[in-house]
This record gives sequence, structure tokens and C-alpha cells, in this order.
Amino acid sequence: MTRLAWNGYGKAEVRLVKVDRNEAAHLLTDLSVDVQLQGNFESVHTGGDNACVLPTDTMKNTVYALARQGTVDPPEAFAERLGAHFLDACPAATRAVVTLKAHQWERLSVGGAAHRHAFARGSEERRIAVASVGRDRTVVEAGLEGLGLLKTTGSGFSGYLRDRYTTLPETEDRIFATEVTAQWRYGERPLDFAAAWCAVRRALIETFAEHQSASVQQTLYAMGEQALRACAEAAEIRLVLPNRHHLLVDLRPFGLENPNEVFVATREPYGRIEAVVTR
Amino acid sequence: MTRLAWNGYGKAEVRLVKVDRNEAAHLLTDLSVDVQLQGNFESVHTGGDNACVLPTDTMKNTVYALARQGTVDPPEAFAERLGAHFLDACPAATRAVVTLKAHQWERLSVGGAAHRHAFARGSEERRIAVASVGRDRTVVEAGLEGLGLLKTTGSGFSGYLRDRYTTLPETEDRIFATEVTAQWRYGERPLDFAAAWCAVRRALIETFAEHQSASVQQTLYAMGEQALRACAEAAEIRLVLPNRHHLLVDLRPFGLENPNEVFVATREPYGRIEAVVTR
Amino acid sequence: MTRLAWNGYGKAEVRLVKVDRNEAAHLLTDLSVDVQLQGNFESVHTGGDNACVLPTDTMKNTVYALARQGTVDPPEAFAERLGAHFLDACPAATRAVVTLKAHQWERLSVGGAAHRHAFARGSEERRIAVASVGRDRTVVEAGLEGLGLLKTTGSGFSGYLRDRYTTLPETEDRIFATEVTAQWRYGERPLDFAAAWCAVRRALIETFAEHQSASVQQTLYAMGEQALRACAEAAEIRLVLPNRHHLLVDLRPFGLENPNEVFVATREPYGRIEAVVTR
Amino acid sequence: MTRLAWNGYGKAEVRLVKVDRNEAAHLLTDLSVDVQLQGNFESVHTGGDNACVLPTDTMKNTVYALARQGTVDPPEAFAERLGAHFLDACPAATRAVVTLKAHQWERLSVGGAAHRHAFARGSEERRIAVASVGRDRTVVEAGLEGLGLLKTTGSGFSGYLRDRYTTLPETEDRIFATEVTAQWRYGERPLDFAAAWCAVRRALIETFAEHQSASVQQTLYAMGEQALRACAEAAEIRLVLPNRHHLLVDLRPFGLENPNEVFVATREPYGRIEAVVTR
Repeated sequence: MTRLAWNGYGKAEVRLVKVDRNEAAHLLTDLSVDVQLQGNFESVHTGGDNACVLPTDTMKNTVYALARQGTVDPPEAFAERLGAHFLDACPAATRAVVTLKAHQWERLSVGGAAHRHAFARGSEERRIAVASVGRDRTVVEAGLEGLGLLKTTGSGFSGYLRDRYTTLPETEDRIFATEVTAQWRYGERPLDFAAAWCAVRRALIETFAEHQSASVQQTLYAMGEQALRACAEAAEIRLVLPNRHHLLVDLRPFGLENPNEVFVATREPYGRIEAVVTR
Repeated sequence: MTRLAWNGYGKAEVRLVKVDRNEAAHLLTDLSVDVQLQGNFESVHTGGDNACVLPTDTMKNTVYALARQGTVDPPEAFAERLGAHFLDACPAATRAVVTLKAHQWERLSVGGAAHRHAFARGSEERRIAVASVGRDRTVVEAGLEGLGLLKTTGSGFSGYLRDRYTTLPETEDRIFATEVTAQWRYGERPLDFAAAWCAVRRALIETFAEHQSASVQQTLYAMGEQALRACAEAAEIRLVLPNRHHLLVDLRPFGLENPNEVFVATREPYGRIEAVVTR
Repeated sequence: MTRLAWNGYGKAEVRLVKVDRNEAAHLLTDLSVDVQLQGNFESVHTGGDNACVLPTDTMKNTVYALARQGTVDPPEAFAERLGAHFLDACPAATRAVVTLKAHQWERLSVGGAAHRHAFARGSEERRIAVASVGRDRTVVEAGLEGLGLLKTTGSGFSGYLRDRYTTLPETEDRIFATEVTAQWRYGERPLDFAAAWCAVRRALIETFAEHQSASVQQTLYAMGEQALRACAEAAEIRLVLPNRHHLLVDLRPFGLENPNEVFVATREPYGRIEAVVTR
Repeated sequence: MTRLAWNGYGKAEVRLVKVDRNEAAHLLTDLSVDVQLQGNFESVHTGGDNACVLPTDTMKNTVYALARQGTVDPPEAFAERLGAHFLDACPAATRAVVTLKAHQWERLSVGGAAHRHAFARGSEERRIAVASVGRDRTVVEAGLEGLGLLKTTGSGFSGYLRDRYTTLPETEDRIFATEVTAQWRYGERPLDFAAAWCAVRRALIETFAEHQSASVQQTLYAMGEQALRACAEAAEIRLVLPNRHHLLVDLRPFGLENPNEVFVATREPYGRIEAVVTR
């Protein structure tokens, strides 16, 4: 005898680009949208009865139609609006989780002036907004991913546990390179989602830059602590900081010193440090 | 006031290739190894004290050294051996989670005979083994990912919920294409990890092929059900089945019918169906 | 004063899946199609006059329509048919280059028997067919890419040029791992494109396996030589063989020998060896 | 009888990060380096004699050693220096082609001031420098790739050739999105490589933004023309402009108009327009 312990279904990677054709300047929003419904879908799984299933194709259509009928900014509010719609549209669902990821475009400047309708792709950093809308309660989270950060000094690693397989030399000065994923839950609703997001992001970045790092762990915690300090509505933050190792090249075989100048950037293996910081 | 609610750290993507140079034929194992320690590492995060941190560089060295000192087959047992070692090596850790992913190489045949030491890369399907080793209890999971499956008929989707945003036509005959991710937990230890893995994989594949599908959900559940039936030691299985849509091309503008013959394969958006099937 | 020195345009990555719904068993063809037109398109570039431009959207439609109206097998013949069509459809074009890449699907077996309509994704190796159709002359090429090959012995590298920056130790026994790209031009039309392709592929693989390799260069040349020997119609072959380094792990710090048993697979940097072998 | 018609070998994807630890502020250079030697290497291929082969491992070491012993800025000059070194180091070579790709890092600002040693990853645009150093003559090229550009208006496509497979509606107003690859050859050596590169890049971007586009071809040509005008030393430029289609979503089934507001961004298929513009 088997049974369905958990289920979720939806549409992923709905690519939505919206242009707000204002007189003064066009605004461009570029989103990847993910919708997931959870709930009482046993009859679909075990009986092949689709009567309670809102098709994922309909979810896709709905994303575009609701984008046309209202604003997509801020993404947290658009995620909530979509989630509420889907919960309403699908009675069997007990929860709708909508995740938005915003791709960056930067307005071009031409002849020193901001251009009205032309843009260049920004970095791979994506702003994240998640609304998990239930029948009773909605949880809103914000975040970012793909934010590459690197500092050329102000980072060491020493005094660690050693065993017979330890060969790593201690260092007081190394490159610290990472690609930040951060996601925080709002305990209360901020007045201004954009301002809250910017405050958290600034705290993360400035702490990374200024912190004298004894370990990735210590810097991660400091970043989380400052993020919560910067945004009173954020109740908890989860951070993932891969350690993208930059190894000092041994130039001694060629009669050369290498005073922290020439490094090889590596992709694998990499350290992976993660934690949840809460109040 | 903030505090550390959860933490984990380790080395990801340790690439290990082991050659067993038997007389008769070389055996080749190609693994990506992930190690994560969880536990009492508050002092690292909040105090910058590394005394209890086993460096991730040491984890990497250990993977290679333990691969040399014993067998890496079956991967479930190698994951357990690594996990037990790390828990022993790091007193602050309360849990070591080791995840192995095995890349496929198929022995070449030359002149009709199996070659002694030459291989061709197989498909992107990877066998997964996870050991989560705690002070009291170890959980072993097995799985696979990247298994592309497609059936050209035997799949329909109809009778679903409709709303004003529904445009999808009902169909009794469509392509069903997916890329299976499956991971199952062993309630008891199987006598033979390889045989158990093969039995589950065969059940998944054969059910996919034979099932007359009313929805991805229904086929997913049937696959999970048959997987648990095929392996008495598997207590629970989690399946993720993206729906890689193959859309029938509308050839009517060119005066042509298209009786389920010519399709466009799409990458985004895609349906995403997931569930946990348990006993 | 500037002028147009060369130009080409077309549609890339047209994804075509064709199902031949035979009684006995469905046949599945999965292609990525690339079309490029070259020719007298100066007025488009310099005058903004589109009268001679066949839209790339039309190219896409045509790929699907022609797939419906005839066979797509062998890919070389389908590429020729597409190329001839486009040259005909666009008088300003002097050449149409059509490139097909075939993705692999392997028929599933269920209960020991080949299944009628279910398939598993094969390896990332893709068969390539290129037709370059001009007003006077057509050139047909065939090839493959993404073919991963690895041998655990039968390969060395020694006796090379040394300078002050050379630290590589000589070896008589190393792993040789590569990912073959091969493309050959047919001087004459083979009777059977599939048979010719298989003969070249077999020659490449068997030579890789059997050749006692003094360098990637030497093995590449032997592979090219045997490929031309195996297929009389192939006039010339271009081979690219990245050297995917598998480095022996130094286990001496841990008191362990490593007799060519434990390796780290690396992605970057890699050697890149390429050559054209001709008659 | 077969013979070697052409050959090249070298090291690809050498990842070099150099930190110039100036008092005032650290400078960060992040390069991927590719080295290729061409020449008289027949004996290697056909005889297995490695005496004239400079190992690719030595090339890698040399990149790091030469980065330590001199400046890596501008990349064009570093590419020339590397190329000249390798030609000197390997008598059998007749040509050394060195390709550098620079990854972007942007200095962080903290509290409004530029930080001394912390950086954020920039966009995926990479500056390219190529030196092809022969015994008699050196050719230097510069370029860029991965530059995403998008304009929300100022682009149409109409008046094109139609046939029975044409369904594309004409439009006077569409999104034009692309990812520019550009590479130009210097006929003469510019006084300042960085200034020349910036001038070409600015011409490309500003022309894209300002040009009223009748087709991708026309805008591409205008970009090339203005690039050559902006840099007297550039003799020729090659441009590749994929047309990343943004399709207007049909919202009429939902009773909604869509006045160029809501689009779906697609990845495949895509148009691919390329040309060489010369003087």
C-alpha cells in the first residue's frame, strides 16, 4: 500500500517581459516566473481524474494576462497578486507559491544622457520575490542570487582543526570570492518593498567589503546580522556563500616570488557555506 | 539580537576518478562528491574561532585518500564510509551528509569484443547516493537524475478545470517527455545496493513506458508506486518530473495536416510535477 | 567609406522532432536545424530595403513543412533538400548552408523486448550533417560532436621540448580523455550516408581505443587516417580533440602510494589539439 | 595516402587573476587565456616524435610567469608579449595565436566612496584581445562578446520577400534584443588600445540605440560603419547579432489588447545575422 505524502505542480520558467511605455522613458521589466500549487490532488495522482487540475498552460496564460491588467512592480506584490489569483482559481489547492526572478537591464546613456528606450544587459545577479499564499496566511520572502563578490585582501583562514589529511597552509591574507544567494522572510510587511530590498542588499555588500574575515562562516554571519539590522521587517535570512577558491600560483620553480599577485581562479571543487540567521 | 538558526558547510564538486586496474579489464568510476557538516559551529560564526573547523580542503584530500584505501563501490557504502570518517574527524559536527553522483562511462567494443581499458561517455543520467550520518542514526538514500524519457503516444490530458484564461485544447494523444529526478530513502538496508538501485530504476522506466497516462501526476504516482513495490527496503520516494512540452506544429497555413508527426521541442516554460510517495 | 565584405543570415536552433508512426514501432528523430543564406544582400544592409530578404521566420516554418512533406532521414539528404529549397526561394542568395544536429534517443526495452514507442535520452554525442548548396555546386559534410572517450592506459607523453617554464613530468602511462569533434567532407556522394557515417565513427573510436598514444596529436592523426581509409568518399576530415586532463592525486603526504589509481578530473585549463587530415 | 593539411595545438581556458596591490586601491584583472601554436609539427602527428612540442602545460606555466614579470594591461599588449614569447620558445611554430577574454569586476562603493579592494561581478560582456604573431607579421584584433542590448522601440521589419511558407506579420514597432559579438582588426597600431576599444564600443552601443532599424542587417551595418568611423586604426570589423525574439503575447482570447506591452522572451529558435564591414 502506498500513498501520496506530498505533491506540488505548476509552470516553471515563464518568461515575461513588460514594457511600460511612459512618455518620458520606457520602463523594462524582465522576469522569470515560477508557479506551484500544493493541495488536495490525490484523485489526480491515484485516480487519473483531472477535474480539479488547473492546467499549467493556464498558469502561463494567467501570468501574461495579469501582467497586462496591473503593475508588475514591486515583484513581491505581483507575486502575491498571482498567488491569490491561483488559490482562488483552483479550489483543490491549499497553497500557491509564486517565485519571481528579475533579470537586470541597465538604461544606456548616449552622448552623456540617459536613453529613452535602449538598455544593456546587467550582471547575472537576479532579484528574487516569493509569495507563498495559503488559505489562512501568506508568507512573503525577498532575496537575490548570482551576486558575485570578490575582495583581494581583508580575509584569512587559520587556527583550524588539523588531522592527518590536512595540508592546507594557514594564511592571513587571501582572496575571498563568492557568489551570494540570500533569501529573507518578512515577519511584517515593509512599507516599501524596493527600499527594504535595497537596504538588505547594501548591508550584505558593505559588510562583505568591510569585514575583516577570519572565515567565510564569520563573514556570512556578519552579513546576515547586518542585513537583519538594516531591515526591521526581515525576520530571518538564509545565506549561501560558495567559496570560489583563487589559488596563489607557485612561481618558485621559475625563480619568482608571488606576493599575492598572480592567482588561478578555480571552479571545482568549491567550498559551500550556508546558514540561517534569525532574531 | 540575532542568532544562528542553522548552519552547514563543506566541499562541493570534488571530482574523483578511480581506476581499478584489474588484469582482465580496467574498471572506471567517475564521481562528483559533496560533503557537508552540520553541528555546533556557533563560535566560528559569531566569534571567528576556527578551532573546531575541519577545513573543506581537508575534506577534499580525505575523499581522495579514502578512495585509495578502500572500494568506492557501491557508492552508498562509500558515502557511509566518508560520512562516518568526517563525523569522527570533527567533534563539533553532529551530522555529516555525503552526496555522490556517478557519471556514466560505457565500455567500448572493438571488433565486437569488449575493450579492456577504453570507454565512451554515456548519457547525462547520474546515479545518486546520499549518506546522512549522525551520532545516533544514519539515513541512506539512493536516486538518479538527468534520466531523459520520452514516449510518442500513450499519453493524454483532458477533463481538467477551465477558467477564463484556459486555452489549452484537450488531447488524447500527445508526446510525453520528461527528465526524471528520483530519490528514495531506505528504511532497511538492502542486501545489495546495486541490485536495489537497478530494481527501482527498472520499475520507473517500465512504468513510464507502459502506463496509459491521463496526466503527468498520474504517471508519476504510478512510477513511485511500482518503485516501492520493486524494492521492499525503499520506504519513500520523491519524484520530480518536468513536462518538457513538445508542441504539435500548426501546418494548416501551408495546406498540410499534421497527424501527430511534426513537433517543436521547447525548453521554457515547462511544467514541473513533483510528489513524495510513501508506504 | 565602408563596404560589406561578407554577410550571412538565417535561423538557428530550430528544434524539430518528427515521429514516424509505423505500425510495428514508432521512429523518433530529434534535430536542431540551422539555416544560413549568403549572397547579394547589400541593399538590405546599406539601404534598408528588405525586398530580397526571406524572413528567418519563414525559414523556421519551412523546416517544419518540409519535414512533413518528406523524409528527414538520412540527415545529409534532408539538409540538401532544405538547402535547395531555400536557394530556390531566395533569388538574392548565392549559397544556402543547412546544418543539422541529431540528438540521441535510444529505444527502451521493457521485459526484455524493444518497446514500440518509448525512448530514453542517449549520450550528448550529436550526429552532424551539413549541406552547403550553391548555384553551381553542393558540398556535403558529415560529422559528430560531443563524443566523450577515455582510456585508462595506452597513452604516454615524453621526449618533448623543455624550457625554463617546463615542470611537467614525463609519463609513459596516463589517462587519455577527450570529447571528439569530427567533420568530414564528401568528395563523392556515398551510396548510403548512414553506412558511411557509421564506418567513419567506428574507425575513430576503434583507433582511439587501440592506438598506443605518444601524444594527442599522434592519436588524432591516426584517427583521421583510419577514418579516411574506412570511407572512400570522405576527402578530408577535421578533428578537434580537447585533452581533458585527469591528474594523478599526490597521496604521499598521507603516506600512500598512488599507482595510477586515483585521479582528479579537471575542466579548465585543457589542451586543445586540432588538425585537418586530407588525402 | 593521407597527409596533415593543417594543425594547431595549445592550452585553452587558462584562468588568470592578477592583483596589482597599489597603495591607493587594488586593481583586479580577470582573464581567460587561450594559446595556440601552428606550424611544422608533422613529425609529431605522423611519427610520434615530440621533440619539437612545447607542452601545453608549459604554456599554462608561462602565462602565469609572464603575468608576474610584467603588466597584463592592456590585454592586446599582453597577448602580443605572450605570442612573441611562444614563437621564440618553440622553433617549429610558425604562428602563435593568443586570445584573451577579460571578465568584468566593478569596484564596490561603500558609504558612497569607492572601496579600496572589494569588487562585484559585472555583466557577462567580455573584452577580447587577440594577437596572431607570425615570424614576419603580427595581427592584432580587439573585440567584445556577450554584450546584451535591447531597445523597446525604434525597430521594425516589413517589405520582405514572401512565399507560401511566410506567416510573419509585418511590424513597424518591435523589441530588438541581441547579444553582440564584435571583433575588429587593427590595420595600424593605435596609440592607446584602451581608448580605441572604448571608442569602438561606444560607437556600437550608441548606434544600436539611435538607429531607426528597418532590419537587424541594416542596424548591424550601421554599427560596423560607425565603429570604423570612430577608430581610424580599425581596418575591418566582424559583427554577429543574434535576433533574440521577444514575441508579443496574444491576449485577445482573454478580451485584452496588448499595445506592445507584454512579451514573451524566447531562447530558441533565434535569428542569426552576421557580416564583415570593411573600408
